[in-house]
Amino acid sequence: MKSVDLNSDLGESFGIYTIGNDQEVLKYISSANVACGYHAGDHNVLLHTVKAATELGVSIGAHPGFPDLAGFGRRELNMHPSEIYNLIVYQIGAIQAAATVHGTKVNHVKPHGALYNLASKNERIATAIAKAIYHVNPELILFGLAGSQLVKAGQRAGLQVASEVFADRTYQPDGTLTPRSEQNAMIHDEDVAVERVLRMVNEGKVTAVDGQDIAIKADTICVHGDEPKALDFVKKLREKLLAEKVTIKPFGENAHG
Amino acid sequence: MKSVDLNSDLGESFGIYTIGNDQEVLKYISSANVACGYHAGDHNVLLHTVKAATELGVSIGAHPGFPDLAGFGRRELNMHPSEIYNLIVYQIGAIQAAATVHGTKVNHVKPHGALYNLASKNERIATAIAKAIYHVNPELILFGLAGSQLVKAGQRAGLQVASEVFADRTYQPDGTLTPRSEQNAMIHDEDVAVERVLRMVNEGKVTAVDGQDIAIKADTICVHGDEPKALDFVKKLREKLLAEKVTIKPFGENAHG
Amino acid sequence: MKSVDLNSDLGESFGIYTIGNDQEVLKYISSANVACGYHAGDHNVLLHTVKAATELGVSIGAHPGFPDLAGFGRRELNMHPSEIYNLIVYQIGAIQAAATVHGTKVNHVKPHGALYNLASKNERIATAIAKAIYHVNPELILFGLAGSQLVKAGQRAGLQVASEVFADRTYQPDGTLTPRSEQNAMIHDEDVAVERVLRMVNEGKVTAVDGQDIAIKADTICVHGDEPKALDFVKKLREKLLAEKVTIKPFGENAHG
Amino acid sequence: MKSVDLNSDLGESFGIYTIGNDQEVLKYISSANVACGYHAGDHNVLLHTVKAATELGVSIGAHPGFPDLAGFGRRELNMHPSEIYNLIVYQIGAIQAAATVHGTKVNHVKPHGALYNLASKNERIATAIAKAIYHVNPELILFGLAGSQLVKAGQRAGLQVASEVFADRTYQPDGTLTPRSEQNAMIHDEDVAVERVLRMVNEGKVTAVDGQDIAIKADTICVHGDEPKALDFVKKLREKLLAEKVTIKPFGENAHG
Repeated sequence: MKSVDLNSDLGESFGIYTIGNDQEVLKYISSANVACGYHAGDHNVLLHTVKAATELGVSIGAHPGFPDLAGFGRRELNMHPSEIYNLIVYQIGAIQAAATVHGTKVNHVKPHGALYNLASKNERIATAIAKAIYHVNPELILFGLAGSQLVKAGQRAGLQVASEVFADRTYQPDGTLTPRSEQNAMIHDEDVAVERVLRMVNEGKVTAVDGQDIAIKADTICVHGDEPKALDFVKKLREKLLAEKVTIKPFGENAHG
Repeated sequence: MKSVDLNSDLGESFGIYTIGNDQEVLKYISSANVACGYHAGDHNVLLHTVKAATELGVSIGAHPGFPDLAGFGRRELNMHPSEIYNLIVYQIGAIQAAATVHGTKVNHVKPHGALYNLASKNERIATAIAKAIYHVNPELILFGLAGSQLVKAGQRAGLQVASEVFADRTYQPDGTLTPRSEQNAMIHDEDVAVERVLRMVNEGKVTAVDGQDIAIKADTICVHGDEPKALDFVKKLREKLLAEKVTIKPFGENAHG
Repeated sequence: MKSVDLNSDLGESFGIYTIGNDQEVLKYISSANVACGYHAGDHNVLLHTVKAATELGVSIGAHPGFPDLAGFGRRELNMHPSEIYNLIVYQIGAIQAAATVHGTKVNHVKPHGALYNLASKNERIATAIAKAIYHVNPELILFGLAGSQLVKAGQRAGLQVASEVFADRTYQPDGTLTPRSEQNAMIHDEDVAVERVLRMVNEGKVTAVDGQDIAIKADTICVHGDEPKALDFVKKLREKLLAEKVTIKPFGENAHG
Repeated sequence: MKSVDLNSDLGESFGIYTIGNDQEVLKYISSANVACGYHAGDHNVLLHTVKAATELGVSIGAHPGFPDLAGFGRRELNMHPSEIYNLIVYQIGAIQAAATVHGTKVNHVKPHGALYNLASKNERIATAIAKAIYHVNPELILFGLAGSQLVKAGQRAGLQVASEVFADRTYQPDGTLTPRSEQNAMIHDEDVAVERVLRMVNEGKVTAVDGQDIAIKADTICVHGDEPKALDFVKKLREKLLAEKVTIKPFGENAHG
């Protein structure tokens, strides 16, 4: 029987600034990527989000990013790999303690935004991230873009790795995401998006932009819940997966959720 | 045979801004209170300092503070105890991970600056800090001002507590520190300061400002190493303690150092 | 013919974090207090807000606060008056340049949150703020709580001062606001609130919590637009003022708006 | 009679973190580029530095940078030119007010670090900076790398522009600086450096790395004073310039200094 993980980025509010619709999206996902206070979130939001996810049986993940609240972690910062290593260690540590006080454990780590994109292509950065995770806790699972340098670096480091796919994006013949700058980067038709996800999960295949089928590993699917339309899509995707007998659960054998 | 701990605040540099003389003072102390990136320090400085201390056999402590780099954690921020709880959890977590990747463990927690002072007097804040520490790891040792609310809160929470004394400060008859605003708050004569420390350690007594002897618990002595004169005092104090057969070692049975 | 100013706090978004409903509330007010990047806002939001206000003929004011985005400027920071002076100079300068590039001028200054409250009671802080404003530009108008130390300090410094009143708050017999911690601090009935404002504007009187009428100066009325209900109240208040032949316009002869 | 400007970056301390040797270097330079609180400095340091420079007759310049204290403005941030425009306006405004309260005026603007380097090569960023300066005050002088896009953008915008040269760097045949990554990028011999500066000032020529002489405009020379050796070089350069009858004074006719 097939299973897949649904993950979403949460805990991104800061001080009095509220963002997202965490309490609602937590009802439909199996893994929460929780901001750790660098690109978003703060100590209050972090602990609150870990608690809320745990109460709903959702697995907890660290979502470390660049230290850039003003840019929401979406701007690449030119840092030496050793500094990337350090900031990953720091952020995982923070959320580990948050998990401990709420009686749970961190299950996975998924870098955020510009750090995720950079690590997908840059082997040295990817390696620094993978080593940092392994050194903090070798049982943590690394979430990375399917087929990316980050996934490879995680495997080399000895980590369990989950390959992530995107429901609303198209793929190139080589398995990379079509850059957002191109016309056909996004899939706007929800039904098409759902069907593609089902095929990735059930068959391990997706049709690339040139029409040919390519192999893709879909361990976890990234979804968003910050807008009403996005939340509706999550519900629809979830229902369809369940109808097709696909179990929705956190990735990894020991996942807490 | 008597023993005592010498602790100092370290890891307070930030980015290109360097402060203190960490590498030198590490030679003479037994416990390092390492800034955790809120009032001072950053992820690079934190990991570097944990590594440097560990290499010299100095025990590691978390030194959490208010999130206020501009004020160096010396300004009181009006926060609800639950928020204090959260920021303590966050900062301990960060340094715990730093310790893990360098093959060591965090031994103690000592709040910094305005947070330390506030927790000395405010029972609700003291309790929030003690509970946060206990929930993250009940084996962590709390460093607090001898006789303070923080020490009492730590004991109530079930933590092992180290009573901290200051070599260069005078005491009131009730055991509290003479406020810095008063004329006789500081002890400027190094020899007098050393003798007072020896008596606190050996006899558990100190002469208060009114001339009477009072009982004081001296588990750990706070020293500074950021200025040449301060460093000289640390060396002198260390030599005198050793000459008097007082062992200098981290507080606590399981201390790593 | 009577006139009064309606002011509101705007420009408080930060990065991708959006707060308030600036574009809507700008339609109904005569003065915008624009955050200057310390307690809220950033350079992008600041310039955008100055432009939006100017296009709708709303007068521009600096809304300087404590440098505390995490606390939204609502926490008192223990700063020397000279540092308060400096941060006021800095923030006014920033918005002055923003006004210049959009072809307008800053008309007034209203401190934000904890700084406003502190300056209402603390003469030294009030004086530092008043002097900073005067030294940057003696033609700037200071908005302060009616009857407060800030209003008095502004007058002593030689500034034109606007006395601010609150539609939704009750007053003590001595003219101070009833602390929010007390039961009867707020006025929840919109019609009562509107009637009180009209009387403050037309008669210079308000009924204090003990039932007696006291004198009050109402040059400018603080309103909020961040929630639908608050915005509805602004519309209602505006309509009633206009119906009663009260002109709504920025305070000060040379006001740009 | 020849004249040249000596400029240096100052006001880069932050909170309790002290950097540089401002009070000393101010004795030898004619223009101070003062940090504006984004990459370094704060409102206290800013006002203090403006005051100190003014007291010694040194001309004031804004030294705006990326908002990145942790990276000291040395990391490029991917920002839209309109955002660069906004942050330039903001920072110039802040220092203009600081100058006003100390009875002086801002004379020039020199972008800092990564922003300076980016603007040297990127025409859109250079144009955004030049327009921001012009819109705030068309009388401000722009300091840019001799021959760079920034100098050209300043001229197109209608600004008075000062071409900046570096005493300790070598030049390529096309007039650009040899990248620091190359072996021969730096000039370590102080006497050689002094002679090169004299020739740039007196003849408008410098020998490029391939041995040929190229034309170079030397309106202002960047010097550093944060290390003892650097300060010694400034003194030596100053003495030699004066001995060769070169006047050292701020660039621009209306310079305050």
